[in-house]
Amino acid sequence: MRLSRYFLPTLKENPAEAQIVSHRLMLRAGLVRQASAGIYSWLPLGFRVLKRIEQIVREEMDAAGCHEVLMPTIQSADLWIKSGRYNDYGKEMLRIRDRHDREMLYGPTNEELITEIFRSEVRSYRQLPRNLYHIQWKFRDEVRPRFGVMRGREFLMKDGYSFDVDFESARKSYDAMFVAYLKTFRRMGLTPIPMRADAGPIGGDLSHEFQIVAETGESAVFYDTDLVELIEQGELDADRLKSLYAATDDKHDPKTCPVPPERLGTARGIEVGHIFYFGTKYAEPLGATVTDADGNQVPIHGGSYGIGVSRLVGAIIEAGHDDAGIVWPESVAPFKVGLINLKADDPATTAAADGIYDRLRGSGVPVLYDDRDERAGAKFADMDLIGLPWQLTVGPRGLKGGVVELKRRAGGERNELSIDAALARLCG
Amino acid sequence: MRLSRYFLPTLKENPAEAQIVSHRLMLRAGLVRQASAGIYSWLPLGFRVLKRIEQIVREEMDAAGCHEVLMPTIQSADLWIKSGRYNDYGKEMLRIRDRHDREMLYGPTNEELITEIFRSEVRSYRQLPRNLYHIQWKFRDEVRPRFGVMRGREFLMKDGYSFDVDFESARKSYDAMFVAYLKTFRRMGLTPIPMRADAGPIGGDLSHEFQIVAETGESAVFYDTDLVELIEQGELDADRLKSLYAATDDKHDPKTCPVPPERLGTARGIEVGHIFYFGTKYAEPLGATVTDADGNQVPIHGGSYGIGVSRLVGAIIEAGHDDAGIVWPESVAPFKVGLINLKADDPATTAAADGIYDRLRGSGVPVLYDDRDERAGAKFADMDLIGLPWQLTVGPRGLKGGVVELKRRAGGERNELSIDAALARLCG
Repeated sequence: MRLSRYFLPTLKENPAEAQIVSHRLMLRAGLVRQASAGIYSWLPLGFRVLKRIEQIVREEMDAAGCHEVLMPTIQSADLWIKSGRYNDYGKEMLRIRDRHDREMLYGPTNEELITEIFRSEVRSYRQLPRNLYHIQWKFRDEVRPRFGVMRGREFLMKDGYSFDVDFESARKSYDAMFVAYLKTFRRMGLTPIPMRADAGPIGGDLSHEFQIVAETGESAVFYDTDLVELIEQGELDADRLKSLYAATDDKHDPKTCPVPPERLGTARGIEVGHIFYFGTKYAEPLGATVTDADGNQVPIHGGSYGIGVSRLVGAIIEAGHDDAGIVWPESVAPFKVGLINLKADDPATTAAADGIYDRLRGSGVPVLYDDRDERAGAKFADMDLIGLPWQLTVGPRGLKGGVVELKRRAGGERNELSIDAALARLCG
Repeated sequence: MRLSRYFLPTLKENPAEAQIVSHRLMLRAGLVRQASAGIYSWLPLGFRVLKRIEQIVREEMDAAGCHEVLMPTIQSADLWIKSGRYNDYGKEMLRIRDRHDREMLYGPTNEELITEIFRSEVRSYRQLPRNLYHIQWKFRDEVRPRFGVMRGREFLMKDGYSFDVDFESARKSYDAMFVAYLKTFRRMGLTPIPMRADAGPIGGDLSHEFQIVAETGESAVFYDTDLVELIEQGELDADRLKSLYAATDDKHDPKTCPVPPERLGTARGIEVGHIFYFGTKYAEPLGATVTDADGNQVPIHGGSYGIGVSRLVGAIIEAGHDDAGIVWPESVAPFKVGLINLKADDPATTAAADGIYDRLRGSGVPVLYDDRDERAGAKFADMDLIGLPWQLTVGPRGLKGGVVELKRRAGGERNELSIDAALARLCG
């Protein structure tokens, strides 16, 4: 992509309304713009990141045997009245009356609707287990939306739902999601810590939330260092991991903490996922039953599994940035390479940079090419700000010596290389 | 994908509520289920088709130099009050009050919001032209939603917006979209006919709609056969095509029609796209101006470009079906191949079918494998109903002779082939 033709409005100054670093950087790097309180428009660069995160989530859900569906954003109130949550949910639920004065709502979550879909179609335990998920916009009318996409009102969530014939089977579905979540966040370059959690308005008696480690995280977390080591080594046995201690500060009590001090780690964390086993809480009021192996009608045992897809864009920035801007992990970066033409008004430099651009694109490497006629300083600052993993700089001085400069955004390591050597590094 | 583990609830009978063939087939083939009036949940098979259509639209927009963004579904009423459309839009607009009693709405289209984004960031004609699009859910509160996803209330639309410094440049942007739309629909196996249209609530004085040909289409269309020939031959010169006659029955008047009878074609059509040039209609009230080459502040000239993405699922079925079910074009089919194991309780047959399944997947061919223990008749009927382009049937009798049967869904041609020959045909 040529920057001269792209739509990437960067800001030099920190916007006054942004209180946390990810919000500041998302505005400055031209990822989003606020449309109204807690509601954002995703500009091209931010949209690419959002889609890459969504795709990692999708691939890991599919690999775990889940099936993707898409439920609507607007629901009828009927099922929520049946489940008993219509009143429970309070003012966070965006309530709507349509032209025929029917009560509707903008879904904050989808347990009722997916249970109803399942109820209408599934009759026998032989059709179980199943796990259906969707990646859809949700709305929660926060009284005080803030922190950019970290606590917005309209946000993108992956919510998945498992259906099983009994508790034993449901626990397996739960554990499979527990492991899939760890894999998902690891692929985004994050360190996730699972911890026991309250079920809140979803209900049920087994629940974990997933916090990712970030210096600027919203809560302090305390954990058994064995837990994080196992996760970092990819040893993802759900039973073993669930047995190891982790808690946020509001639950952690040094007096009762079972972990010896030498194994007690602490960090700051951001919640990015939450899973629930809620048994028959929705199946009973909605009448979702199947015939079991003995011919009895039994209510389905359910679980639900959420990942904050748009929240992750902010969380990943909180976990990866420096004074100059964002530092994207390669797996979610909007482009792999930022190519800088240092002297766009010099035909030889431009010819060399154009050639490199064509070769990168020819090799399928996603590249953003700063071909603008701007000062070098502004180009370097913008490129650091938007945080692409690799910066390749082409200038007249280097070209005389037959070299270009390759910089790794994370860490800042720079190397002068021949064009061929630089391309070999980037196209690998 | 193994059908025994998939979520594909098919129906044998025609649902009474469905009046048109695409609605009937979408329900019967398990593509969608109604969540409430005019609002649908997309089940796994339907979701795959929706995503494939979306991806074709995306690729053609990107190829035409447009940039993808994502605006929210919920908007503040403010900009709509400024543009003057807040009252104009009437009861079709879903109006919402949030917890702070602010007037919000579910966007039926996005001219105001995108113009505001552009206004805030763009200052100079040098930053033009630009074309931004998004693929997002819209809501129009139809008084009587019907025909399934063809006239739903919540629907997925690609809406794009061009920004130019003057009329001449804007006309080029318009023509580029005119051509991109024809390419887009052609890739879906459709025959699109562009025709002059009224601008309606979008406004402006230049507008075309795109009807695709389907025997069961909603309107009669009349056209110069040269027009359709040029489009089918891929000769997509916008000026030439725009000069050729086409009109729906409500505008066509045999007395004034300029086409000689021998060149006047007629068909039935379904509207799937609509493009508008509206000049400064939104830029003026919203104050979206740029500095032109002479240093004057001038309002931006805009156009907008819509494709009904979810509507296309229905439209493609209207254009491609027979008595047995859907006939998907390969470019949008949810899977390329349906593999039928005729005797799932026979170990030899199952071993052969499993082997073919693995080889197809190994070659990256999307395949739905009917591994259920069901009667052959039910399997054939389901496979015809869901309309995958190729059916590969593995049975004990054929295997004795070393053959499997390959059937092309469109046309019904069948061939007995060796397994290797069948795979060579499908993996090519």
